[in-house]
Amino acid sequence: MVFILKPNAAKEKIDKFIADWEQKGFSTIYSVGTEHTAVCLIGNTAEIDLDHVVNTTDIVDYGKRITEQYKAVNRTVHEDNTIINVGCASIGGGFFTVMAGPCSVESREQITEIAHSVKKSGAKILRGGAFKPRTSPYAFQGKQAEGLDMLRIAKQETELPLVSEIMNQTQIELFEDIDIVQIGARNMQNFDLLKEVGKLKKPVLLKRGLANTIEELLMSAEYIVSSGNDQVILCERGIRTFETMTRNTLDLAAVALLKQKSHLPVIVDPSHASGIRSLVPPLAKAAMAVGADGLIIEAHNNPAKALCDGAQSLDLEQFHSLMEELRKRAVIESKIF
Amino acid sequence: MVFILKPNAAKEKIDKFIADWEQKGFSTIYSVGTEHTAVCLIGNTAEIDLDHVVNTTDIVDYGKRITEQYKAVNRTVHEDNTIINVGCASIGGGFFTVMAGPCSVESREQITEIAHSVKKSGAKILRGGAFKPRTSPYAFQGKQAEGLDMLRIAKQETELPLVSEIMNQTQIELFEDIDIVQIGARNMQNFDLLKEVGKLKKPVLLKRGLANTIEELLMSAEYIVSSGNDQVILCERGIRTFETMTRNTLDLAAVALLKQKSHLPVIVDPSHASGIRSLVPPLAKAAMAVGADGLIIEAHNNPAKALCDGAQSLDLEQFHSLMEELRKRAVIESKIF
Amino acid sequence: MVFILKPNAAKEKIDKFIADWEQKGFSTIYSVGTEHTAVCLIGNTAEIDLDHVVNTTDIVDYGKRITEQYKAVNRTVHEDNTIINVGCASIGGGFFTVMAGPCSVESREQITEIAHSVKKSGAKILRGGAFKPRTSPYAFQGKQAEGLDMLRIAKQETELPLVSEIMNQTQIELFEDIDIVQIGARNMQNFDLLKEVGKLKKPVLLKRGLANTIEELLMSAEYIVSSGNDQVILCERGIRTFETMTRNTLDLAAVALLKQKSHLPVIVDPSHASGIRSLVPPLAKAAMAVGADGLIIEAHNNPAKALCDGAQSLDLEQFHSLMEELRKRAVIESKIF
Amino acid sequence: MVFILKPNAAKEKIDKFIADWEQKGFSTIYSVGTEHTAVCLIGNTAEIDLDHVVNTTDIVDYGKRITEQYKAVNRTVHEDNTIINVGCASIGGGFFTVMAGPCSVESREQITEIAHSVKKSGAKILRGGAFKPRTSPYAFQGKQAEGLDMLRIAKQETELPLVSEIMNQTQIELFEDIDIVQIGARNMQNFDLLKEVGKLKKPVLLKRGLANTIEELLMSAEYIVSSGNDQVILCERGIRTFETMTRNTLDLAAVALLKQKSHLPVIVDPSHASGIRSLVPPLAKAAMAVGADGLIIEAHNNPAKALCDGAQSLDLEQFHSLMEELRKRAVIESKIF
Repeated sequence: MVFILKPNAAKEKIDKFIADWEQKGFSTIYSVGTEHTAVCLIGNTAEIDLDHVVNTTDIVDYGKRITEQYKAVNRTVHEDNTIINVGCASIGGGFFTVMAGPCSVESREQITEIAHSVKKSGAKILRGGAFKPRTSPYAFQGKQAEGLDMLRIAKQETELPLVSEIMNQTQIELFEDIDIVQIGARNMQNFDLLKEVGKLKKPVLLKRGLANTIEELLMSAEYIVSSGNDQVILCERGIRTFETMTRNTLDLAAVALLKQKSHLPVIVDPSHASGIRSLVPPLAKAAMAVGADGLIIEAHNNPAKALCDGAQSLDLEQFHSLMEELRKRAVIESKIF
Repeated sequence: MVFILKPNAAKEKIDKFIADWEQKGFSTIYSVGTEHTAVCLIGNTAEIDLDHVVNTTDIVDYGKRITEQYKAVNRTVHEDNTIINVGCASIGGGFFTVMAGPCSVESREQITEIAHSVKKSGAKILRGGAFKPRTSPYAFQGKQAEGLDMLRIAKQETELPLVSEIMNQTQIELFEDIDIVQIGARNMQNFDLLKEVGKLKKPVLLKRGLANTIEELLMSAEYIVSSGNDQVILCERGIRTFETMTRNTLDLAAVALLKQKSHLPVIVDPSHASGIRSLVPPLAKAAMAVGADGLIIEAHNNPAKALCDGAQSLDLEQFHSLMEELRKRAVIESKIF
Repeated sequence: MVFILKPNAAKEKIDKFIADWEQKGFSTIYSVGTEHTAVCLIGNTAEIDLDHVVNTTDIVDYGKRITEQYKAVNRTVHEDNTIINVGCASIGGGFFTVMAGPCSVESREQITEIAHSVKKSGAKILRGGAFKPRTSPYAFQGKQAEGLDMLRIAKQETELPLVSEIMNQTQIELFEDIDIVQIGARNMQNFDLLKEVGKLKKPVLLKRGLANTIEELLMSAEYIVSSGNDQVILCERGIRTFETMTRNTLDLAAVALLKQKSHLPVIVDPSHASGIRSLVPPLAKAAMAVGADGLIIEAHNNPAKALCDGAQSLDLEQFHSLMEELRKRAVIESKIF
Repeated sequence: MVFILKPNAAKEKIDKFIADWEQKGFSTIYSVGTEHTAVCLIGNTAEIDLDHVVNTTDIVDYGKRITEQYKAVNRTVHEDNTIINVGCASIGGGFFTVMAGPCSVESREQITEIAHSVKKSGAKILRGGAFKPRTSPYAFQGKQAEGLDMLRIAKQETELPLVSEIMNQTQIELFEDIDIVQIGARNMQNFDLLKEVGKLKKPVLLKRGLANTIEELLMSAEYIVSSGNDQVILCERGIRTFETMTRNTLDLAAVALLKQKSHLPVIVDPSHASGIRSLVPPLAKAAMAVGADGLIIEAHNNPAKALCDGAQSLDLEQFHSLMEELRKRAVIESKIF
């Protein structure tokens, strides 16, 4: 249940309104937007007489029931687009932000060369995996803590903010210098990890799980936001279906739907979605056209020798060309590129 | 196995080359393109010594083995894009062609009003279902033959070519005045029907089945082309997955992949894919961006009262706005709109 | 809406009751069971005052609304299990009936050898494909009409009733001597074909489509029954999922659920479901344990040389062993084997 | 690559053989079975001359390449069935072991009442969730540490060993008294957690993820076993498909296949697979018939008031009846029940 407050509602009255509900056993979400300020109640609201509350509370303009289970991430509660700022980059709202870099950090030279290059092409954030979730225990598991050090150096040299995947909550301190903490697809419903990153004061990139519905993705975001961190970026990266010609099936309708249902920014990962280099550019353009707020793309200085996911990585020149293509389209889509 | 012929190969030598292979029990596909002319062999080619044939046949430039099971629709055999002409409309190549109209033809007034309107907005082909495949035997099954008559009248009034779905091979004569015969998703592997429309001299719109792979779609197209009809338009319309918030999951990567693998035009149906009106415009734009050759869209003069699929139909004004949006993007995608 | 009639309701009163509803525009299904006799209304029953009808009609014992879209196949309308008799075989009720034979009829010798053998092992019905739906137009398409002739000979020699797949409605006369007409998975929603076999006076084996829900299977059965043919056997044969190690994913929960929801017999095809010979026996036993009314199994005298689906066919000895295993379990499951 | 050693191979020669390979950079798995003793090499074995090794090493009987990525859990390496002993219970081999209890531990009274009852019915292990993974942050998250205490009491009273789900690696000490640590479906690819439970000296119950293939399940088991813990029990609990009438689709073919590919015991969870109480008994029987080594079943003393998953829980009487049914079938399946 959400109450939209009158524009001139006094702060102390709002505080009292909230305190009253919490005393009755409800949790509350307090949301201030440009259009309106709202108070959202979590709990068993079935027996509340909505009209009565509206009629008897002078600071309340109107109220409505939210049937969706997600409250804090619901656009009904927070009409404005959430914009997340990281260093010089902004994600959400009118921006179209590209994160790029290798699947896996391999060496200091590799990551800095790639960082300089993708920055020149227009990427605003550097991606790079230090801890890699791999199906096989015998496959390369990433450079681990050392990889994070290499990322730090690339950041010093290029001033690009960093995004990298965290694997479990014991690693949180290790990620101190990582600007955006990524929750991978396999961890989308690792609820304890969600609660932990919900206590951080930095953005979280939350990838949709391979077999998770749009609603479940929003519920996982709700875990993070309701734990205190409202800087969540959603990421569509393909779902698992019967089709085998692509690695996964990219669900671009989900992007358009997420933008309707939630105020959070939504980006797309065309690299993992397809698993095929030649499909990355068309899918990247389609993602922009469908309304995504950005992309996360695998780019490598030598895809043929990449330790991980080479077949889906663009080389630096291909990445540059794609960025040129996207820049042209950003104009028509009214996006700040 | 495909043999690319030398540019100056004499017709009688080509005929003899083909006749020789057919005598040995192979079927052949003869394909003339702007770049090259090719002869493709169907059959057990495992024991053919490719080098020997190339070296001993003076009209052959080079040869290659095709591992894919689809031959006639394979871009390796026919490098140029197939362009299909229907009345004043062209589908494939540099064109971006929109087919629009109601899910179901309901009355003469309805279909002609819609036809005039979508034509003014820029649609090049009128869609309308006369025979409707419905899950329930108790649901509206379409206006049947009478619906085809109504379509004919709308065509006379607007000169828009028609596309409509055929349900089985006994209806072929009924569809004489329908310019493009549509094979619905549920009939994609109705192989006898594919063979029958393969004997027609008119284009066939072949929709991907709900649970069919990209390769199976190409194999179904191969049924039609190998039966003698090379005017096939492929249509991606969403596949069935675990996601329930949308009617189906639109697989736009399939569009980009189909364009790589085959020379046939590929269009997208964002209406059936999503089942939700507000998702049709973003998905339509994404389809153009990913490289589709056109769209088939449900538009209705009164969606709220539509006898079928009202929730996913645009009204005529919404359709008009979408066409304006697409027209702007066609410039940047270098498409003739 | 279904009305359960009083045990002693007079025939002329029932006829009048039905006629009255039909005059009001409803279709009716009249169902006589051992427990009760029912009249089911099809149409917009929302405005009918159920209590009023029950109170004012002396032949009606009680009534209830059915929310499911399937009526004629609904167990609510017809509580008793439907039992279908073909030659000496019975399917449904307390029987467990095995249909066996090759994927494809290949020669008179092949089919008769297999027929004699599977009969000796306890199979009650002979399966064999004459028309084969194949993904590729270049694959073996079955022996066609000639294959039906071979089946006829095998029937004469063994007295086993026949089941074989029909591909389209123009073939109905060809299938005159086939005892059970099979609708394959790809044709489960070929609604015109369903209507045609709904006019036959013989049993129809309806296979679940690869991407069709349990409810859609029941709705397709409803097409057949509401067209006049209540001898429908449902068949679970695996659905398409992301798993690639098996050909399809056998959904045995569907079998138990279908038995609850409908009075029709349900059999299982473990051969197509798995695509792997060694999985056929365990899945066959599981099908019996879950409550299926029978099986349809591929058995071949020489699987290594089968023209179709050899990898999933049991040889005749393996089939015999499996039947022994099933016979033992039939006792504990209280089935007539 | 696996080397089967000669029966009389001297221990010191085996040690040297293993040491030599490890010096060359391979990991090894040493496996002693009743039939044979094997040494399996992990690493890039492509360049090893298999025949040469066999011919020049006197303790080696023969060798073979394993193409599967899973080695330690592969039946090729370890032909015998792994049998896991917990208290008086044994899982695997000829045993059929039922684990039962509530979805969630709710109170000391609830869990002890259920424990006594399921023990009397024949359950050998008590299940009960203390930490519950829930899609919504607002849903009941389990009794947490207090729930583990309640389980401990139930164990003291009944001597039933315990199985309960661990959520992350920081909880490992909390689970000291839990006999079998369960990895839930959502954590199947939480690789860091797998490595941690791989260091434990107690059995791990590993559930298949909602969207994970059979091969991925085996690879996750490989993480545990290659970390040092070979007591892994696999659990099939349904996969996510397009079907919505059941909660998931139980893949019983996977059970039969897992038993062929691996030596680990495989159990089935019919409660979560179906989500429907009335489907639990038929699926449980089918699981036994298909070759499972046991079941994990939700049973509750008052399903209507269960805090979690009441709709799929059997009441104690229903559980008792099911156990009676299973006991009868165990005889015919030659299982120790």
